[in-house]
Amino acid sequence: MTYCVGILVDEGLVMIADTRTNAGVDNIATYKKLHVFEKPGDRVIALASAGNLAATQAVVSLITEGIEDAETGGLETIWTQPSMFKAAQFVGRAIREVYNVDGRSLEQQQASFDVTFLVGGQIAGGRLRLFMVYAAGNFIEATADTPYLQIGEHKYGKPILDRAIGHETDLYDALKLGLVSMDSTMRSNLSVGMPLDLMVYRRDALASELIHRVDVGDPYFHDLQDRWSSALQAAHKAIPRPPYGND
Amino acid sequence: MTYCVGILVDEGLVMIADTRTNAGVDNIATYKKLHVFEKPGDRVIALASAGNLAATQAVVSLITEGIEDAETGGLETIWTQPSMFKAAQFVGRAIREVYNVDGRSLEQQQASFDVTFLVGGQIAGGRLRLFMVYAAGNFIEATADTPYLQIGEHKYGKPILDRAIGHETDLYDALKLGLVSMDSTMRSNLSVGMPLDLMVYRRDALASELIHRVDVGDPYFHDLQDRWSSALQAAHKAIPRPPYGND
Repeated sequence: MTYCVGILVDEGLVMIADTRTNAGVDNIATYKKLHVFEKPGDRVIALASAGNLAATQAVVSLITEGIEDAETGGLETIWTQPSMFKAAQFVGRAIREVYNVDGRSLEQQQASFDVTFLVGGQIAGGRLRLFMVYAAGNFIEATADTPYLQIGEHKYGKPILDRAIGHETDLYDALKLGLVSMDSTMRSNLSVGMPLDLMVYRRDALASELIHRVDVGDPYFHDLQDRWSSALQAAHKAIPRPPYGND
Repeated sequence: MTYCVGILVDEGLVMIADTRTNAGVDNIATYKKLHVFEKPGDRVIALASAGNLAATQAVVSLITEGIEDAETGGLETIWTQPSMFKAAQFVGRAIREVYNVDGRSLEQQQASFDVTFLVGGQIAGGRLRLFMVYAAGNFIEATADTPYLQIGEHKYGKPILDRAIGHETDLYDALKLGLVSMDSTMRSNLSVGMPLDLMVYRRDALASELIHRVDVGDPYFHDLQDRWSSALQAAHKAIPRPPYGND
């Protein structure tokens, strides 16, 4: 399993991904699921993936090695996309290419072609955007009303985002809330695990502000987990007990 | 969809169920999903259901109308069960009877026979127990290590239970935490909705202590939602922003 979240606020974009993959509970491994394609001044595109590891790796390989453009005969890559919309379309096209090669064989083995990607970033001349690309290659976009998108095991970590994230949230508060959401997910689903990869991008900077790996034992993340846990305990203790029956 | 939770603590048992059913988003209705079978001094058995409404209603009808005992020819009902273990087995048997009648036809219509029940309570001479009965009629039991069981849309409301519920939790704190868990679920899944039905049973009382419906606009529940929301806001605001990048 996997949990990745992208948060698009007024100040910029936060992307966080866990790194655990598993094929059964006795076959777990660490794989990077957050890839950043960056050429300062030109583009920063962060790609997070969930689902079948062979398929998501093939998609990442395809968008970097390139897909032939049927009209021009040239190679299209993530670096040649002129806009974020085109970049999302291109990731969708790569997913379809991988499906055309592997999809039927996977289905014959009762394995599903279940891949989802978050594609967020900015290309010079365009605006900062965040998309979620489905296995069919189609995609949706985060907006001011719904400023975050999640892929993988999304439910455990959703309540805190639903309550706390808005378009006007400070960029590093968004990062903090994304980490709280990750913590909730990792506590409830063993197949989502440390370390965490994260990227922070400030709108119009055209260079990433922060690319960081949060390792096991990271003092800030450990402190965040402790504080959040204590605060939740204090929060429910501060609520009076139900008066029902004493009415 | 549905969300029901049963919490078994040292002092007793809490059962909470929402009441929303839906067949598509344009066909929602209110149905009681928490049924309490009570004869003071003899037994209190609370049954909460999730899944296909026709199937869960049929199971409830069967366990009250009775199933013929193949050996004696007599009618077995939920009232004739000598122990909670037998009661859970009996609910399992009723599920299998309903599956035998409806299961194949449902599958022919691409509808699934997806039912789950919580069965909690106490029968004179036995101890307080809480079971989750699956569609196959088999079941698991809550223990001191894992003092709560959930059915239906369980993920959104699980993190708070994971963090806060223990076997030693006060009975009305357990009720309060169950309501917080319900609130988180209703915020994130529209198909779980008010009113809520709840039961509180104190161990060895052999009579329910509280059976209550929390209606829309209930002042305590409204206050709990407000306090919880404010406390979560305060909790994440009190955590320092990530220092990453300033190391």
